[in-house]
Amino acid sequence: MRTYLDCIPCFFKQALEASRLAGASKSTQKKILRKIAQGLPSLSLKKTPPEMGQAIYGQVAKMTKKKDPYLKIKQKSNRLALRLYKKLKNKVSSSKDSLLVALELAIAGNIIDYGVKNSLNVTEELDKILRYEHKLIGKESKKFFDYETFRKKLKKSKTILYLGDNAGETVFDRIFIEEIKKKYPKKRVLYAVKEKPIINDALAKDAYFCGIHKSAEIISSGLDLPGTVLPKCTPAFRRIFNKADIIISKGQGNFEALGKRGNLFFLFMAKCPVVARHVGCNIGDIILLQNKKM
Amino acid sequence: MRTYLDCIPCFFKQALEASRLAGASKSTQKKILRKIAQGLPSLSLKKTPPEMGQAIYGQVAKMTKKKDPYLKIKQKSNRLALRLYKKLKNKVSSSKDSLLVALELAIAGNIIDYGVKNSLNVTEELDKILRYEHKLIGKESKKFFDYETFRKKLKKSKTILYLGDNAGETVFDRIFIEEIKKKYPKKRVLYAVKEKPIINDALAKDAYFCGIHKSAEIISSGLDLPGTVLPKCTPAFRRIFNKADIIISKGQGNFEALGKRGNLFFLFMAKCPVVARHVGCNIGDIILLQNKKM
Repeated sequence: MRTYLDCIPCFFKQALEASRLAGASKSTQKKILRKIAQGLPSLSLKKTPPEMGQAIYGQVAKMTKKKDPYLKIKQKSNRLALRLYKKLKNKVSSSKDSLLVALELAIAGNIIDYGVKNSLNVTEELDKILRYEHKLIGKESKKFFDYETFRKKLKKSKTILYLGDNAGETVFDRIFIEEIKKKYPKKRVLYAVKEKPIINDALAKDAYFCGIHKSAEIISSGLDLPGTVLPKCTPAFRRIFNKADIIISKGQGNFEALGKRGNLFFLFMAKCPVVARHVGCNIGDIILLQNKKM
Repeated sequence: MRTYLDCIPCFFKQALEASRLAGASKSTQKKILRKIAQGLPSLSLKKTPPEMGQAIYGQVAKMTKKKDPYLKIKQKSNRLALRLYKKLKNKVSSSKDSLLVALELAIAGNIIDYGVKNSLNVTEELDKILRYEHKLIGKESKKFFDYETFRKKLKKSKTILYLGDNAGETVFDRIFIEEIKKKYPKKRVLYAVKEKPIINDALAKDAYFCGIHKSAEIISSGLDLPGTVLPKCTPAFRRIFNKADIIISKGQGNFEALGKRGNLFFLFMAKCPVVARHVGCNIGDIILLQNKKM
């Protein structure tokens, strides 16, 4: 997905938010906004939003000298989600279609990201997910939730590449992967994380902390931007990407970054008006769509 | 109120919105955003948001060559609100405290502004107001709704200066003014509008169209910015401002523009997070506060 003009105000908002998280003084915050403004004339709207994100968050890191301003948020998200692990597992195991429920929870887990960044009560939201009361659970928006196609493709696949998104959400991914492995023990699952800190995206240490390694191989995409922009990934990662039978791509950032490629399924919650408009869904909708249908 | 750093992303958003309303091409929209970005280094946060608004909307008007991009929106708002006039009057006359209800409706009428600019269903919102079901009606947020002080001050005043806000909302203002005149026929009411188009703010023609002249004298502040920035008003208007016994200031823009001055009552709906935080209320709260308490 290319960058829309509507993304520009949001870049400033994100820069301000990240500057504050990095503990920047008001004067530094203003300087950062100025720097972003200076970069505007050379902005190419052909770049994807995650590439823009890299430039913006990179600028914030440089000017605040904080390489990982979201560290505490990531740690908090991991802890919050891990605390729910047992309850989530019970939820899944007591359901009729445990794969579907695990899948829905994995997408709903994306709310953590939204929550931590928007002062939403994360615990409350997670409770809603647990009680299955969350109004956004996929079944209600069937148009964008193609479970059948996904299920069939998954069954046939040997190697599954799972592109992770945010810290915390990783626990929900783990439960989904565990469900896949329970149903298909012989399938190989690779879980891709970012190489360096970018916003609250999961790094290898987050994936390990959340226990992903118990059912999947953790690999790095080599990236420090908030979406899988393939030309910027390591050659090793690209080889895995190209060979995988199915790619489960989590989150808006990966959706924004990846073009039309086969075997790709996007799983995300539409969190911004630009993405929602691009997809044709509503903000808050839970999306499971095969790439070719986008 | 000074401009906060959080206003900066919003300036870009407003510029984009206004550019589109003015029918600008994508390339012009981008040029406008660049121009706003170029102005950022010289931006003084000591200026009030309406002063910034003047610069931004002025830039859009200049670059799109459209002096009044909100013209159609204003006309639509006037028509929508006028259609409700009789129903609103019945609502007021059938209530126990008709002045209070007219006052609450006048503030709730501020939703039109929010609606037309944010694709909210205006008719639906107005219906809610009519059914008195609107969750935001003042009584629920008493902390920011000082009716008693206002009522006492109004009773003692001879000359009332009413600072209008948006087109459409003007119908609600008219009903409130009619209620004041019904209760106190001898009081003189002056209704101030903007001199030149700025966003969807009411001009003299909007006030006449909505029938304000039947119970108040319509005067111009001389302004082309979205809030009563006194040093920029005409000397004639400032004399009226300084002599008025009570000033009823409608809308966020006037609240943002006016500093600590006596006899001022702010009536508005808190529509943005920055204003809500500044006041200490929630977004959507209906505010009636004497200036000295802010």
